[in-house]
Amino acid sequence: MINKKLYLTRLFDFYGNLLTANQREIMDMYCNYDWSLGEISDKKEISRQAVYDTVKRSEEKLEDFEKKLKLLNRFEKLRNNISSFKNLIEDIDQKTENEKIKEDIKQLKIALSEIVENY
Amino acid sequence: MINKKLYLTRLFDFYGNLLTANQREIMDMYCNYDWSLGEISDKKEISRQAVYDTVKRSEEKLEDFEKKLKLLNRFEKLRNNISSFKNLIEDIDQKTENEKIKEDIKQLKIALSEIVENY
Repeated sequence: MINKKLYLTRLFDFYGNLLTANQREIMDMYCNYDWSLGEISDKKEISRQAVYDTVKRSEEKLEDFEKKLKLLNRFEKLRNNISSFKNLIEDIDQKTENEKIKEDIKQLKIALSEIVENY
Repeated sequence: MINKKLYLTRLFDFYGNLLTANQREIMDMYCNYDWSLGEISDKKEISRQAVYDTVKRSEEKLEDFEKKLKLLNRFEKLRNNISSFKNLIEDIDQKTENEKIKEDIKQLKIALSEIVENY
């Protein structure tokens, strides 16, 4: 189980655009800038309780999106697959002297890096 | 540009769980069973216009989710990368006689089929 705050940040990264503008602004401070509730409260000039309520409500919405869509889960599985891919490809690269295979491996690495860039 | 109905069906597959139960039911008939508006109207005992409106409204909602989240777009890119992967791996497999590389390739194919199953 990954760290709860990190998981929330991943959910926000995926589904954040489905939140309201106000929720997004507060969650951006909370998740991406790692500000405390007190710091957000000072910055936004609203009560700490109001910040807490917005974070809580946003968290519930984000978790509900994931419960319904399970897209983050899909992507996490993909990430794991990509890591094992990388290791296997490196392994083949070290075992072969065949230039044509080395060329294929180069292409595989390019395709892999494109995937990593996109996710 | 892929076929419009196919694209709508992919959107429904991704974001369908964010629609209402009634929208989901009608979109399931329309997309997955490929029923006509008239057939759905008979089955649901509502007017053809009401079916049309629901399809239209659902389509707008699904397109809006994609506009905000772009997750289908990410997955489509991934699919393209996976196809080039497959070809490259087959290519290496045919070029090598090295048993250890063949074993790595077997593992790569397993990892690939897991990805394909999940998407």
